[in-house]
Amino acid sequence: MAHIKLDEKLPGIRGLFAFRPETALPMSELVEVLLHTPGTLSMGERELIATYVSAQNDCFYCQSAHGAIAAIHLDGDEDLVRQVKQNFEQANVSNRLKSLLAIAGKVQQSGRKVTAEDVERARKEGATDQEIHDTVLIAAVFCMCNRYVDGLATWAPQDADAYRQRAAPVARDGYIKAVQAYVKTA
Amino acid sequence: MAHIKLDEKLPGIRGLFAFRPETALPMSELVEVLLHTPGTLSMGERELIATYVSAQNDCFYCQSAHGAIAAIHLDGDEDLVRQVKQNFEQANVSNRLKSLLAIAGKVQQSGRKVTAEDVERARKEGATDQEIHDTVLIAAVFCMCNRYVDGLATWAPQDADAYRQRAAPVARDGYIKAVQAYVKTA
Repeated sequence: MAHIKLDEKLPGIRGLFAFRPETALPMSELVEVLLHTPGTLSMGERELIATYVSAQNDCFYCQSAHGAIAAIHLDGDEDLVRQVKQNFEQANVSNRLKSLLAIAGKVQQSGRKVTAEDVERARKEGATDQEIHDTVLIAAVFCMCNRYVDGLATWAPQDADAYRQRAAPVARDGYIKAVQAYVKTA
Repeated sequence: MAHIKLDEKLPGIRGLFAFRPETALPMSELVEVLLHTPGTLSMGERELIATYVSAQNDCFYCQSAHGAIAAIHLDGDEDLVRQVKQNFEQANVSNRLKSLLAIAGKVQQSGRKVTAEDVERARKEGATDQEIHDTVLIAAVFCMCNRYVDGLATWAPQDADAYRQRAAPVARDGYIKAVQAYVKTA
């Protein structure tokens, strides 16, 4: 049971968004910009960063939700999502994405862990300043979301199909539209 | 030197906001709602939670910036800010705020560390669901901001007066107005 009284029909962050619409909208806008606007990192790559950080934080809801969205953007390749969570250095992704996942993994521990060498590796793989910036901020945003979801003990579906079904409209229409469908003032 | 090319006149998160206005505005709106709108927790109490979490994350810029803003809301009591950072259980704050700082400290480590007992303690001290919610989210937001600021190796003024001067307009006018003054599209 959650630590505060939420609409128990809505799992994870969705119950929290419905509880506090004033914070739901800016949070959704932030995630929309980082994960669902056009960019030089594909939506699949950005969702993999979000999923990896959520897995490192052991947040079942967020890693399941964003893993399912990542898989849609990756032509349904759920195995690739699993590879990235388990050992991204051995996963079938580009060296550029590996170097960014390494930075994201440092941010998950502490911003202070990111070294000049980590950034240099990403640059050598062709990463731009904005890609490095967005990687750090995506990792930081999910350190927030994971703590929000688990810190208030929200519930999470255990069935992978629940995440697949929910992921389809979010991957298609983005985060703001998804939130506006059930958060009244958003 | 920062890991990416920033306007070096702007320290900490300000250089990052100027670099990426698209994310600056929703982040500022989120912090405005949590720290600078009317609420049953005073602005001083909420800034103390932000400062405490930033100190636990060892983020010099954020703990200095929000510590200075907290002190303004607390009638200039900088010693109280120091007490809270060093050992809030012994600080001259209410038992309710101590119980919320205890929750914030758990969130800083991991959302999964918050226990039913932590929440029960806060309820016994009179904390409402929204106060518990906002405490968890403030702590989570600063786990994001601290990682953002340090993960990109932004610079931080070493002089306490720099933070006092900057804190005055932010404490008075809030976060959105502060950002709009130097972030173009915000």
